[in-house]
Order: sequence, then structure tokens, then C-alpha cells
Amino acid sequence: MNIAEFYQGMEGDLAFVEQQLHKQLHTTNHVLKDASTQLLDAGGKRLRPVFVLLSGTFGQYDRLRLTHVAVALELIHMASLVHDDVVDHAQMRRGRPTVKSLYGNKMSMYTGDYIFAQALANLAEIDDPLLHKTLALAIERMCIGEIEQIRDLFKTDSTMRVYLRRIRRKTAFLIEMSCALGAMAAGCSSLEVAGLRRYGYYTGMAFQITDDILDFTSTEERLGKPVGSDLRQGNITLPVLYALQDTTYGQKLRNLLHEDCSPEDVLSMVRLVIESGGIEFAQHVADRYLAKANEGLAVLTPGKNRITLSALATFVGKRDH
Amino acid sequence: MNIAEFYQGMEGDLAFVEQQLHKQLHTTNHVLKDASTQLLDAGGKRLRPVFVLLSGTFGQYDRLRLTHVAVALELIHMASLVHDDVVDHAQMRRGRPTVKSLYGNKMSMYTGDYIFAQALANLAEIDDPLLHKTLALAIERMCIGEIEQIRDLFKTDSTMRVYLRRIRRKTAFLIEMSCALGAMAAGCSSLEVAGLRRYGYYTGMAFQITDDILDFTSTEERLGKPVGSDLRQGNITLPVLYALQDTTYGQKLRNLLHEDCSPEDVLSMVRLVIESGGIEFAQHVADRYLAKANEGLAVLTPGKNRITLSALATFVGKRDH
Repeated sequence: MNIAEFYQGMEGDLAFVEQQLHKQLHTTNHVLKDASTQLLDAGGKRLRPVFVLLSGTFGQYDRLRLTHVAVALELIHMASLVHDDVVDHAQMRRGRPTVKSLYGNKMSMYTGDYIFAQALANLAEIDDPLLHKTLALAIERMCIGEIEQIRDLFKTDSTMRVYLRRIRRKTAFLIEMSCALGAMAAGCSSLEVAGLRRYGYYTGMAFQITDDILDFTSTEERLGKPVGSDLRQGNITLPVLYALQDTTYGQKLRNLLHEDCSPEDVLSMVRLVIESGGIEFAQHVADRYLAKANEGLAVLTPGKNRITLSALATFVGKRDH
Repeated sequence: MNIAEFYQGMEGDLAFVEQQLHKQLHTTNHVLKDASTQLLDAGGKRLRPVFVLLSGTFGQYDRLRLTHVAVALELIHMASLVHDDVVDHAQMRRGRPTVKSLYGNKMSMYTGDYIFAQALANLAEIDDPLLHKTLALAIERMCIGEIEQIRDLFKTDSTMRVYLRRIRRKTAFLIEMSCALGAMAAGCSSLEVAGLRRYGYYTGMAFQITDDILDFTSTEERLGKPVGSDLRQGNITLPVLYALQDTTYGQKLRNLLHEDCSPEDVLSMVRLVIESGGIEFAQHVADRYLAKANEGLAVLTPGKNRITLSALATFVGKRDH
């Protein structure tokens, strides 16, 4: 199943979001324009806009208002990607060279800041303090999640609780807020907002766990970056945590896991994690989150859009790229 | 003359701003808390809050409302300092180790992003879309200014026009907006807002030119970083531009000015720029901006606060640290 199938019926509104994204990032500065265009053209699933628009269908669907929210959220996501690449020393993202590898760290940082500013400019079109506060909180949590990830690098004694809290902040909260803000911008009831929030949170958790699984099970071609990249950088994800707690595989992994390890060592570690059953365990956790995501939808009016949200969660948690 | 003299009568309100800054940056994350506290304790002149509060006295002075604006602006300024240090490889700022030198590039970037988010959270307390848009524009311009600065590094064929446009974006616009937003938040007339805006713009230009002069004329102790730091990084400021256009000094400077030059070369260049008369020229340009800053004040009600603003501009353009 392809993600495009979920977008049926939303093509017009998503094209409008795309157009607004381009408009918001238009600038006369050549380097900045090239970097932004590069980022826009690299595509991405535009998942956050999709969550905003779909959530908005449960209230008074106002395309312009929802687009402002969707564009702001996607820009924040894009800014965080640009900043991620600065610290990750990533050369490739979505199969294309990163802004950083093309223009250097300095330029990437200010490009990210510029995109943040554009998100703020876009959101300023909506006169709702609660919305502004919520978005500020989302960025704040995202930063804390990233900082925790740096703090926890190469920490082989980390726990599942620490991992889950970190990915909640780093990833799930922004997806949770995409659903909540979409619902709020459409004037949904507080019950509906809460349901969509729960849905977004659990889907976001499953999304990140799946992302962490794909670092082991996918291919360089599909990922757009080498397999085992997280592990190479010392990012202890759920499959690794599971393997580390295994008596057989734990010690072998600990011996290999250190900074500047060779590509061969990375491949050995990837194999160890897979053999330990860490992937199945992580998939099991993701599945439990997906079941909970569906429970969140129960308060919503049944129909096509609720079915789409449910299918989208399943897709997100089982995707292969 | 000491800057503290300008703050007489504002001590209470500035202490309140300080308290709110601490409150806004309070977090349970240890690294982030340490980094933020380090930054707050390092002090700084809190110039932007002072401009906001003083501008606010020309309208309906609402302490809480003005504090929200002041805190947002100071946080944006602080975030930009943290990000500056990442790209500048600066070890010291305001005489203390930078966040970057203590915690590394990765942490600094997310600390900066976190502070941006806190600025947004603070501003969300004020329900005024125009204010939000203006602030977004200020951040956007600041980023473009920084990007232009990177683009123009070591460009010995740059022009005064390029330099002035860059510092307008990088520095003057945020000071211009401190005055304008303070006036707007206090409900000043559009004539008063425009006057304070002009004042802020010209004062901001003089501020940056003076900053660029101090890189040559001050001491490491006062600057809190080595003399000639801008030049070492290839930042072609106004005194350098003047020297470069001189037939005697231009070629000598071009020969020395390159990446990774020795501390001795930096000192030689500092001497060349001083001997060329570049400092006097830059001071002359700053003085012209200061005169224009005072013209902006003409539309305001005469009195103590107008006198303070005028004296503050003079101080900013003639300070020795």
C-alpha cells in the first residue's frame, strides 16, 4: 500500500498547502532560496499537514485557517530536520544531499532558524493565543527531546522508560499537536480534540519506533542514508535496548558500540540486534501503540475520514520507508 | 558614564523583566537549565528590554504587557547569541565560556532553539497578530543578515552598501523593532511609533558600527574575547572596508587576510586598520546615524524619557565596551 492512497480526495487542499509552503519560503537571498527549494523538492510525506487537514474535517473545515496551521507545523518539522542534519553530520536526507553537506554547518543553522521564523510568520495569520502557546510548547519539547537524545548517546545502561519519554518529546508531541491543532482550528468539541490528541500521540510513538526499526531492516536506497546510521551515532533505540538486555547479545554489542566505529562494526551490530529479536520486540510495542491510537478515534463520528485516520496509523506503524 | 545611569527609575521594571526571563527559561532538564542560567548570569546590557520599556512610556504604560514584549525580544537576542557562538567557534562571550565551549555544538544549537521557543511562548501571552508578524519578520531578517555575513566572509571586494544592508538586517532591525513594538504595545499613535522606529533603526546601526570598532580599539578584558576576533573570522567590517580602499594599506591587508591566519598576523592587521584611519571613518559614520536617531525623537513629547533615549543613543554609539 502506498501513502498516496490516503491522500485521495485531499489532493487539492494538499496542493494548496504545498503552494503556501513555497510562498512562505520564497526569498531573494540566493543561498537561502536554493537551500529551501532543495528541502521542499526533496518532498517528504507531509504527514503533519495530512493530520491537520484530516482532524479538521471533524469540525468546521476552513481550508485557509487549517492551511496556516498545517504550513506552520510542516515548517517547524522542516527546520528541525535541517538542524538535525547539522548535529548528525548527515550527508544524505531523503536520498538527497543535506543542506549542511551542500552549504556547511553555519548556513544550515541559519537556514533552520529562518524556517522557524517563517513558521511563526505563518501562524501569526491565526489570531488564537492558545494555538500559539501550544505550538511553542511543541517546539520546546522537541528541543528537550533532542537534547536528551544527545545526553543519552552511547549510554548502554539506558532504559525503555527513558527511550519512550525521549521519543515522545522528540517526535510524538508534534504529531499529537498536528491532530489537536487541526481539531482546535476547526472548532471541534473538547472531547473530539482529546480523542484526536490521543490518536496523534500514539500514532506518533508508533511512527518513531517504526523509524527506529527501519534503521535496521530497510535498505540504503529506501532510507536515503546508510543502514545502521542511528547506531553508528550512538543513538540507543528500542531494538538496541532489547538486544542490550539479552545475556548473549548484550555484551557483544557493548564491546562494539563506541564512537568512530568502522562500517564493518556497524554491520556486525545491525546483525546482532536483528538476531537478538529486538526488531520483533519493537514491532510488538509499536503495535500496542497503534491499537491505542485506534481507541482514541472512538469518540469521533464514524465515516470515511475516521477510517482514513485509522488506516493511516496502521500504515505509519508498518511502513517500509 | 556607565549604562546603569540610564536605568534610574526603571530598576523595578527591569528587575521584573529579569525575573520573567528566569521564569521563562526554567526547566527540569539539567544541561539546558545550566546552559540557560549561565547565559542569564552572564548579564548583558538588556538593551532591548530598556528600549521596549522606554518606548512604552510614550503611550499607556502597561508593565505586564511591555514585559512580555521585552522578554520575547531579549530571548530572541539570547538565542541568536547562542547560535552565533556555534558558528563563530567562540570560546568566550561576555568574559565567560560560551554554551558551545562548555556543552558542544549540538547542545548549543538546541539550547538556542529552545530559547526561541520560549520567546514564542512568552509572546503568545499577547493577543496581537501584528506584533507576532513583526517579530517573525525581525527573526527572519536577522537570519538573512547572518547568512549574508557568512556569504561575505573574506570578501575583500565588498562595499559599504553591502556592509550597511547586512548590519541593518543582522542588528539594527531588532533594535528598531524593540522601540516599535514597545510603542505599539502601549498604543502609541502611528506618528510616535514611526518616530521611535526611526530612532531605533539609526541607534541600532550606530550600535553595530561601534561594536565593529570596539573589535579593534578595546581590550580582551573589556570585550571578553580577543581583540581582532571579527577580522580573524574574515568578517569585513566598516573600519576594514575603509582600510581596504586605501592605496597604501589595502594591498598589505589583502596579503594578510585569509583563513587560519596566525595571532601575529591578526595583530598586524589590527594595526594596519587603525593606522589607515578606518576607526575615525567608522566613528564618523556612526555619529551621522546618531544624529539621525535624535531626529526621530522630535515627534515625541519632550521630557525626561525623551532625554534618556537621546542620551542612551549617544552612549550606545560612543561606548567603550
